[in-house]
Amino acid sequence: MKPRVLAIVGVGLIGGSVGLAVRRIGSVRILGVDRDADALRLARQRGIVDEACADVAAAARLADFILFCSPVDTIAEQVLAAGTACQPGTILTDTGSTKEAIVRAVDGRLPAGVTFVGGHPLAGSEKQGSDFADPELFRNRLVVLTPTAATDQMTVARVQAFWESLGARVRCTSPQEHDRSLALTSHLPHLLASALAGILPAELTDLTATGFRDMTRIADSDAALWSAILLANRAPILKALAKFDGRLQEFRSALASGDRKTVHALLTAGCEARRPLQGGA
Amino acid sequence: MKPRVLAIVGVGLIGGSVGLAVRRIGSVRILGVDRDADALRLARQRGIVDEACADVAAAARLADFILFCSPVDTIAEQVLAAGTACQPGTILTDTGSTKEAIVRAVDGRLPAGVTFVGGHPLAGSEKQGSDFADPELFRNRLVVLTPTAATDQMTVARVQAFWESLGARVRCTSPQEHDRSLALTSHLPHLLASALAGILPAELTDLTATGFRDMTRIADSDAALWSAILLANRAPILKALAKFDGRLQEFRSALASGDRKTVHALLTAGCEARRPLQGGA
Repeated sequence: MKPRVLAIVGVGLIGGSVGLAVRRIGSVRILGVDRDADALRLARQRGIVDEACADVAAAARLADFILFCSPVDTIAEQVLAAGTACQPGTILTDTGSTKEAIVRAVDGRLPAGVTFVGGHPLAGSEKQGSDFADPELFRNRLVVLTPTAATDQMTVARVQAFWESLGARVRCTSPQEHDRSLALTSHLPHLLASALAGILPAELTDLTATGFRDMTRIADSDAALWSAILLANRAPILKALAKFDGRLQEFRSALASGDRKTVHALLTAGCEARRPLQGGA
Repeated sequence: MKPRVLAIVGVGLIGGSVGLAVRRIGSVRILGVDRDADALRLARQRGIVDEACADVAAAARLADFILFCSPVDTIAEQVLAAGTACQPGTILTDTGSTKEAIVRAVDGRLPAGVTFVGGHPLAGSEKQGSDFADPELFRNRLVVLTPTAATDQMTVARVQAFWESLGARVRCTSPQEHDRSLALTSHLPHLLASALAGILPAELTDLTATGFRDMTRIADSDAALWSAILLANRAPILKALAKFDGRLQEFRSALASGDRKTVHALLTAGCEARRPLQGGA
């Protein structure tokens, strides 16, 4: 059931890590596609891909399983291009951090026998490029798949088996539910990290300690990739931001009035919500 | 020049780490004071203190160097109590995360020959208690001392030498400047981490990844200690929060209008400000 010929479109950190992880589960021919010739060369040098293809269509003609790890604002177009070029029976899936726009653009527009399900591995790093690719990146991580009423169930099962073979756990949810949840658990935190880092005057750099550094680590991510994510999911992110603003307003009022009991209660709520989350720095 | 008899008031993570670090620089008799009998017993068991004293005055009568590592809202009162009990020539300093209120409460109110300078090691953890004490906690960390016009210069030099002997770097600034800076680099981040953790619905716990976890790590800190810090420094924190709000508003407008160029510019600003900060998770 594993891919015979896997095409990875976008051989950066995620695509590169998939390639390295797939190497460990046996013999799979891996094709790489990337607009960035250097990225492609690096992926070949590291043994992540066997062959570099000139474009998505060229890879799609050869592959039976295509994984799109490219920026979220390019995935739908690439999926449709691959769908036109590939053989019936080919399975298409992606790793984009937002799902609704991609799934909506693809659903019902692929040729007969070509199937797609959206996916998102909750794994990554502020690091970019296959230099940092890690075959263990998906071990024990959650991959969310976002089938709709139109999605072929066998495709979901195959993509689930694919991720499980790399050590991940898989959960299915709707694209809308995915985007609403990730707005709060991933996109809002990213925005906050960036906002906090962005207001630090250079002369205070020396007065930061581990708290500030941990909180802003993800601010040092690719601005183009993240602009695309924030814009693709802006309505749910603005809602999450409004919820966050409400909590900030509670802190602000309590501080302004010197209300220790409320400040303590707010901090305790944060403590209690954080405690079940393992890990972090 | 090192202390002969060091009293540590508050033997939690910071006080305990000082005790362990002082053990390495030679023979110093260390007295411990803590309202929490268990904390005191643990500090003796771990060899952090040689003797437990019943109260600040009892320790002050024996010590030539007293370090207050207690919650910020208790330090000034303890310093004044120690000042009354100790011998002339005794040096008093602290590790509180806010400085202006403490220094203002102490300046000019100590008996002749008893001197105090405020201090704040930029080191710590969300962990609490001397269980987590680490003699290397201050290695290469910055300690800010906050002398005023009234502060004895020899006291500043002795306290500086003390921290340097534990591996720290020392910088002097005014209490006001310290509090303004730390509002932005430490207290605001703490409030944001707590606010973010506090709005996470329990059912989304599984959908958090390392970004959310790193950003909220410090939310799992002692709510009483941090209530005291946030309230002691509330005016500068409210100012820092207003600055942060301004940046959030820029993000909000750009997202609402789909202004990719501005979103990209804001993310780039965060990136560029974060890059010089080493470390983090």
